[in-house]
Amino acid sequence: MRIAVLGAGAMGMLFGGYLSERNDVCLVEVSRERVERIRTDGILVHTGAVEQRFFPKIVSETAGMEPVDLILVFVKAMYTTAALEANRALIGENTYIMTLQNGAGHEAKLLQFADRAHVIIGTTQHNSSVLANGEISHGGCGQTTIGLLEGDSSRLEPIAESFTACGIDCVTAQDVKRQIWKKLFTNTSASALTAVLQVPLGFLCENEHAHAVMATLCREAVQVANAEGFVCFEEAEVLAEVEQVCRNAKNGYTSIYADIRDGRRTEVDTISGSVIEAAKTLGIAVPYHEMIVHLIHALEQR
Amino acid sequence: MRIAVLGAGAMGMLFGGYLSERNDVCLVEVSRERVERIRTDGILVHTGAVEQRFFPKIVSETAGMEPVDLILVFVKAMYTTAALEANRALIGENTYIMTLQNGAGHEAKLLQFADRAHVIIGTTQHNSSVLANGEISHGGCGQTTIGLLEGDSSRLEPIAESFTACGIDCVTAQDVKRQIWKKLFTNTSASALTAVLQVPLGFLCENEHAHAVMATLCREAVQVANAEGFVCFEEAEVLAEVEQVCRNAKNGYTSIYADIRDGRRTEVDTISGSVIEAAKTLGIAVPYHEMIVHLIHALEQR
Repeated sequence: MRIAVLGAGAMGMLFGGYLSERNDVCLVEVSRERVERIRTDGILVHTGAVEQRFFPKIVSETAGMEPVDLILVFVKAMYTTAALEANRALIGENTYIMTLQNGAGHEAKLLQFADRAHVIIGTTQHNSSVLANGEISHGGCGQTTIGLLEGDSSRLEPIAESFTACGIDCVTAQDVKRQIWKKLFTNTSASALTAVLQVPLGFLCENEHAHAVMATLCREAVQVANAEGFVCFEEAEVLAEVEQVCRNAKNGYTSIYADIRDGRRTEVDTISGSVIEAAKTLGIAVPYHEMIVHLIHALEQR
Repeated sequence: MRIAVLGAGAMGMLFGGYLSERNDVCLVEVSRERVERIRTDGILVHTGAVEQRFFPKIVSETAGMEPVDLILVFVKAMYTTAALEANRALIGENTYIMTLQNGAGHEAKLLQFADRAHVIIGTTQHNSSVLANGEISHGGCGQTTIGLLEGDSSRLEPIAESFTACGIDCVTAQDVKRQIWKKLFTNTSASALTAVLQVPLGFLCENEHAHAVMATLCREAVQVANAEGFVCFEEAEVLAEVEQVCRNAKNGYTSIYADIRDGRRTEVDTISGSVIEAAKTLGIAVPYHEMIVHLIHALEQR
């Protein structure tokens, strides 16, 4: 497959590196310094004690290049549209565009450049952090799940197989969009709140005031999800599911709770922040989300 | 003066008792048990080591009674309208109706029963708590300030003098409504937030996210104040004043901060809660206020 990876950040380098083993991969990166470094030294991936070095192609501009089979978008969410705009040359009629970015609202941007049957969404358990230009620490492994926004996701089997063959364990699934939102509903309405209140998950069902905030956060997120138009959720049903998650893990503490307790930065921007960003695009008011993101950042910075 | 005091709670008993020294005072209380007890034993006020006993009139119904010169409303805010409704017999053309209740939105209810030139608003530094039926602890003393919603507040001098003569140090002031709102703006936008974040006041100006929440709370409160129509505030000016309060006391901790730190119940309902109640009546959305009141209650109940 001819694959373009937009953004040579932590995840772009990881996927670009691995996939280059059996595919014609080209990374696209605006930082000329990073481009030069990777051209010279390749990408060095540290997975525990194991070191791997990859030499994919890397460019800073794609004007005049031919369309590819698959584009992976790994730029920061705020640059998604600009990155696709700048690299239109890579997008042909049959080009798939894939986002594995965390949070909501990425598809809408991809759909400006491809139809629903060519937009691939998904989640990955891999994570990675940049050590230096061209050098990353591959912290977590696990499954990557991909699916189409519309149509039969099993059409993506060849892509999943190629990923797996390159060391990125990948499966296809129907209804991926729904799964992504479900996970997001819990994170954005329950997890963030446990961080602000510094309580275990069960408290959100036991205390009427905590529950009221959770319910409103949940309602806001469902409104955004439904306004996007890819899936349709019923508010009461979603809230019941989130409540069930809280009850099942009632003595459990979330990672964002621990981040605030220990004075670390949280991932609230990619979770609740992405709901706010999607809401803005759709013209929906999400004041509880806005306030909780501000509160989390203020708590991080005490 | 013929004075009626609605509600024989902590503040009603205190004012009713003191004012009965030199006025014809009648307390009105729906609890027949409390009425019987006060008829028999009077009101016992503990001020430090000093005990005083007062025997004002007390009734549970006022149908058929003559209008009085002054009505003091000391029922809980949610019962204000019902209490005035039930005691319409006491309200004549020249009857003043006074509220010293904490928070916003009380005047609108009083104006259903008297015109602007007969509605007295104010603040008091006295506080009091019920020890038993007919027995109170008089915890704090200080000045009581009263003013008219419309017209020259110096018309109230005779009332203020009578209060003072009875041991309730009282002055009249113009623009009381504006003073009440100014105090409320700081409490509802800054104090409540220091409790949630557990930070000193200065943090709200130093941290951009805390500041963003404070600014929105402030904007909501100003919108409510302006919609009430008694005074007109400029958002930016109010925010600048609240910021100044925070900077002037930048290492200071609010009492509501300490309440949450020490696991006590707070007064958030009479402060931020009253803004929400007024907003509901006026049809204004105050989501940040709603969320912060829920958060404070949830934190109280951890």
